[in-house]
Amino acid sequence: MPDTRSAPAPTGAPSAPGPADVARARRRLAGRVQRTPLVRSDQLDALCGARLWLKAENLQRGGSFKVRGALLAVEELAAAGSRGVLAQSTGNHAIAVALAARAHRLPTLIVLPSDAPPAKVGRIREAGARVVFAGTTLAERVARVAELRVRHGYDVVDPYENPYVVAGQGTASAELLEQAADEGVALDSLVVPIGGGSALAGACLAAAGHGTAVLGAEPAAVPAFTAALRAGGPVTVPARHTLADGLRPDRIGDLPYSLASPVARVLTVSEEDIADALRTALLTARLLVEPAAATALAGALAHAAGAGRGTDIGVLLSGGNVEPALVATLLAGAVEAPRVAVAS
Amino acid sequence: MPDTRSAPAPTGAPSAPGPADVARARRRLAGRVQRTPLVRSDQLDALCGARLWLKAENLQRGGSFKVRGALLAVEELAAAGSRGVLAQSTGNHAIAVALAARAHRLPTLIVLPSDAPPAKVGRIREAGARVVFAGTTLAERVARVAELRVRHGYDVVDPYENPYVVAGQGTASAELLEQAADEGVALDSLVVPIGGGSALAGACLAAAGHGTAVLGAEPAAVPAFTAALRAGGPVTVPARHTLADGLRPDRIGDLPYSLASPVARVLTVSEEDIADALRTALLTARLLVEPAAATALAGALAHAAGAGRGTDIGVLLSGGNVEPALVATLLAGAVEAPRVAVAS
Repeated sequence: MPDTRSAPAPTGAPSAPGPADVARARRRLAGRVQRTPLVRSDQLDALCGARLWLKAENLQRGGSFKVRGALLAVEELAAAGSRGVLAQSTGNHAIAVALAARAHRLPTLIVLPSDAPPAKVGRIREAGARVVFAGTTLAERVARVAELRVRHGYDVVDPYENPYVVAGQGTASAELLEQAADEGVALDSLVVPIGGGSALAGACLAAAGHGTAVLGAEPAAVPAFTAALRAGGPVTVPARHTLADGLRPDRIGDLPYSLASPVARVLTVSEEDIADALRTALLTARLLVEPAAATALAGALAHAAGAGRGTDIGVLLSGGNVEPALVATLLAGAVEAPRVAVAS
Repeated sequence: MPDTRSAPAPTGAPSAPGPADVARARRRLAGRVQRTPLVRSDQLDALCGARLWLKAENLQRGGSFKVRGALLAVEELAAAGSRGVLAQSTGNHAIAVALAARAHRLPTLIVLPSDAPPAKVGRIREAGARVVFAGTTLAERVARVAELRVRHGYDVVDPYENPYVVAGQGTASAELLEQAADEGVALDSLVVPIGGGSALAGACLAAAGHGTAVLGAEPAAVPAFTAALRAGGPVTVPARHTLADGLRPDRIGDLPYSLASPVARVLTVSEEDIADALRTALLTARLLVEPAAATALAGALAHAAGAGRGTDIGVLLSGGNVEPALVATLLAGAVEAPRVAVAS
């Protein structure tokens, strides 16, 4: 059973969401989130030898797909009479919760790692939330959330264990599949980044019955899903540094693991390949993405190399909240044409 | 009368295209060019105080909207039994002609300024065209084209005087207007960049009868349309340097001038504002655009400042073929949030 204690589920809430919950989430979110474009790039296809379908959630409200789950979860809490909301995050979930809570005029407290990217911290504060910093690991943030919850009586919007969050994140993959189908394409596979696992679990729900393989891409530096698959359940891995600040959770959530582990396969991506893919997204597909999204692209490019011509691969470009200084540094090393990133 | 000698018009070709030719061009191009997304950004709207509708032609095949006109013009020539095609350009028209000619297996010669961006030169060669360099002014390139035309017997695809090119470029603006209408929005104004004038003339045709003001944005460094309006016809202006390499033609084409001058207004943009707008497009809207497209965005941001809240402004982000080194340099100066560019 998934642990949903930290996000009390109102009447009728699914403890573990299914494909029908993703469909319901889409109806509820219609007109409230961007239907972001599915971007094609002839140049990118020529580089990798497959056809890539890029779901540009870097163009989403709040700069990432996470607004989808946060809107639903916060709306549920507001309807239940919440006094305020509380969330821990590496950044994007926090921006999304802050934006959603502002719409309901709920006070918001956000717990971030002490080294969260300033661009993300700035956007959270712009949305009117108060920011508290707590260490660099998931456990440190979770402990701080527990303490603040008691002190303020706020409701926690968990980024991994909340069924509304997972169903909401799944709507990005559901849209991707539908937009490809509108072009007459049934995707062979769908690659999403793995942080705490909500994107992956949502993708598994969205892809159910489509004949589309679901692949999760995670940094080799933080192989939380790989370790969970080996151990037969979520385990904490050493918190090593990765460019992909959004993929730093060192443990897969219980709910995402229960939904994704029977279905999804994993692609492991090196730091160099994340950097290469961020440059490729920018210079070849002309989209600014954050390193978490670049991790999915790197995984897709590696997968494409083995998948062969004519293969159709969807890629969830999960967000675009990236530090300008990081982009400048990555570009400064790219004086010639971008190389294709190949995951190891 | 527009000079269409350099692009012999087959039977039925309009010497000066009208709105019906843009509609016809759209039907002919359907499925052959990307229907690029119309991108919205809450953050950008908050910065400028109006609602901007960004037509992301940086995501177009060949990296710019120019593939639209080139496909039509080259198709006409191929159908008329052409032996090969010849074009002068600052870059994007050349890429577009090379891609279109490759589809018809026509040999292609491209005349570029000697300081054309390496990224554009590379893409032209990738498309299989031969590149010849000739000075830095439009007159030098045109003279070289005349000489090569006699020597090889190839047909010239003029970027400004060809009615198919102008009608084709107009399809980008027509799509923009239609995509906004699909969202229930009648645009108050539409801002496009001015180089030789084909985008502007095409926009005037596309907007006819829509009640949408057409505004052309040009660099203060190369005020060819401003000078033409003052002189009552195209004149050559001094060829000063501008970041917007795509907007360097130092004279408006006769055909574009005749179509645009009765309709369009001009916005003049400084070099600093072009740089600021390129950063804003990247960091706020998360789209990589070239300086020509950034010139249109800079013009739109300046226009928005005076237009007031609730105004809907379309912006043709004409292309994304930009040197990585330029982007790195521009980003290196942007350690804080991007400033809004205001045209002088």
